[in-house]
Amino acid sequence: MTYLDYAATTPLLPVVREKMLEVMNLELGNASSLHTPGHHAGAIIEDARAEVARLINADPSEIIFTSGGSEANNTVSNIFAGQDAATSAIEHPSVLESLKARAKTCRIINVNQQGFVDPADIPENVNLVSVMLANNELGSIQPIAEIAKRCKNYNTFLHSDATQALGKIHIDVNELGVDYLTISAHKIGGPIGVGALYVRKSAQYKPLIIGGHQENKRRAGTSNTLLIAGFGAAAKWCWDGWSCKQYQEVAKLRDQLAERILKEVPYSSLNSPLENCLPNILNVSFQAAEGESIQLYLDAENVIVSTGSACAAGDIQPSHVLMATRHDAEVAHSSIRFSLGLATTQADIDHVMTALPKIVTRLQGISTIKIKESNQ
Amino acid sequence: MTYLDYAATTPLLPVVREKMLEVMNLELGNASSLHTPGHHAGAIIEDARAEVARLINADPSEIIFTSGGSEANNTVSNIFAGQDAATSAIEHPSVLESLKARAKTCRIINVNQQGFVDPADIPENVNLVSVMLANNELGSIQPIAEIAKRCKNYNTFLHSDATQALGKIHIDVNELGVDYLTISAHKIGGPIGVGALYVRKSAQYKPLIIGGHQENKRRAGTSNTLLIAGFGAAAKWCWDGWSCKQYQEVAKLRDQLAERILKEVPYSSLNSPLENCLPNILNVSFQAAEGESIQLYLDAENVIVSTGSACAAGDIQPSHVLMATRHDAEVAHSSIRFSLGLATTQADIDHVMTALPKIVTRLQGISTIKIKESNQ
Repeated sequence: MTYLDYAATTPLLPVVREKMLEVMNLELGNASSLHTPGHHAGAIIEDARAEVARLINADPSEIIFTSGGSEANNTVSNIFAGQDAATSAIEHPSVLESLKARAKTCRIINVNQQGFVDPADIPENVNLVSVMLANNELGSIQPIAEIAKRCKNYNTFLHSDATQALGKIHIDVNELGVDYLTISAHKIGGPIGVGALYVRKSAQYKPLIIGGHQENKRRAGTSNTLLIAGFGAAAKWCWDGWSCKQYQEVAKLRDQLAERILKEVPYSSLNSPLENCLPNILNVSFQAAEGESIQLYLDAENVIVSTGSACAAGDIQPSHVLMATRHDAEVAHSSIRFSLGLATTQADIDHVMTALPKIVTRLQGISTIKIKESNQ
Repeated sequence: MTYLDYAATTPLLPVVREKMLEVMNLELGNASSLHTPGHHAGAIIEDARAEVARLINADPSEIIFTSGGSEANNTVSNIFAGQDAATSAIEHPSVLESLKARAKTCRIINVNQQGFVDPADIPENVNLVSVMLANNELGSIQPIAEIAKRCKNYNTFLHSDATQALGKIHIDVNELGVDYLTISAHKIGGPIGVGALYVRKSAQYKPLIIGGHQENKRRAGTSNTLLIAGFGAAAKWCWDGWSCKQYQEVAKLRDQLAERILKEVPYSSLNSPLENCLPNILNVSFQAAEGESIQLYLDAENVIVSTGSACAAGDIQPSHVLMATRHDAEVAHSSIRFSLGLATTQADIDHVMTALPKIVTRLQGISTIKIKESNQ
């Protein structure tokens, strides 16, 4: 199987699995309990917190463990409920939809065709700006440090969803200048079901899940020792293994895939930017071939890709990200996201390129959509 | 080690551990993805949903998986944000505090000395009533079916937090007549980090975690295949193994412990009710002996108990549950909750009774608090 849907979720890293098996074999209590098995659980959590904090250069006290990126993003929108917010048009729905639902006003910041926010478009009179560090469908890395300077001048809090960026590009919350940062374990080889919200000491806060003194009274609910330990192990692996450096090799495979697709697959065009892009994401459109059909035919040949975000899979609506960048439902409906991982090999790329051209050509042959030659 | 803090969290059941190891070894995708590894994950989740639904006689479509009981309880308080609610004085803080924070008004329903709500005290003009099925500190089982009849007459929605009751007493959402029911995996031998909210088809709903079509658009966030599978395995085990029947044996050990404490430990008195009590919980106060000290000395002798809810552990405030039933800070500060599990043995009870009397007597000997002989 050639799995190229790492942006949706990653397999557990061997070190994470090992850590989780170790924790499953311990006699642990509830981490909030004041007895020995409780303290043992608490110590495991604090070790993990230190690992996660180090990976983004935060203080451990600024890390709040959550059930994942979506909860972390919703926590931010809840802090600013009833206030004025602004966010980019290509955010993950757990930012975009939750801000629309909770904020008094939510201004939408447009992006260009490569999916980049222009820092000059950051509005002045809002309480919160939320711009993701890197887009999950395109890979576009936003100029967060520049955006942060403007937010500081405007006295606006800045949140960034770094779920896709973590482990792939260098992240330092102080260099970025963010007040809040969302991260998640299962995009870096950790388990699904645990993430974290970084909250700068100076930033305002209120819990989304209320009633319990866990996470220093910032997130109620029995602390998830097993998954948090897995997150810590994944973060440690990224740090110790210089994962961002390893991803430079992944970028070479990704670039090769892009080149070969443009050369070998008729009427294909890139949606991902060539520069300032995550090393592992490649979003491509194929004229007159439906993304979902391509995905299904590739699946039948054991090549696993997606048509966009897994969170929106099954929606009939075209991707809101591609609609914001390309303004063309046909382009959006004909897109495929390839997302590579550290385990991706040359053989995987060859596998894709054996299957993909004939699938796309076959679909284009039976399509009723007229192909625009100029796009080639 | 004699672990008598099952109400705080339970060890993983062997069948749960086995199921989780099996799932960790599969090549699974994001359960929302439309490709084969995604479908495999989705199928595991739907199997688990059926098991969980069966255990409470719900339809699988009425089960929304959450990150735990606290999130499920907060989801309910969020549905009724800005509306009028009533809840008992002895609810878990994730009900009590979150309703106080979100509802327009939150009336508190008092309980008697055994921790029971009188159905006649259910107010008429509120939108939501929330009364737990069984109390986590005392074990008191509330007359939910009677409360439900009143709520139906008053046209009021009824929520019940059944986190502690699940697997220990028979639960049927239709017999109870509730509109919402909270349950959690890690109180029945499943993993920490997953729970569910039962929502009757006719009941109003809005998500707490917004932005993602998971759980039929009712709870955003990548579906936690691993933990949900563990929850399903635990639910199946409870159903297949008639766990409620097994707990009748646990109740005998609990009753024996109560009898021996009252006989062998000076100035002890029960806070738990003798009837309509969960089979595994025993809350006792020891005059002129501080609960935390008893807990620590027992811990040193490898007997693991708690002074109340783990969610409040470390608080200087006396238990709000015991303050609501006994109205006496001294009683509350001198209480210990013993919570037994299916693995509890006669040897565990003997172990407690070897350690406990001498610890309490020693603490009473050095205490400056005057003992009231009448309480004996």
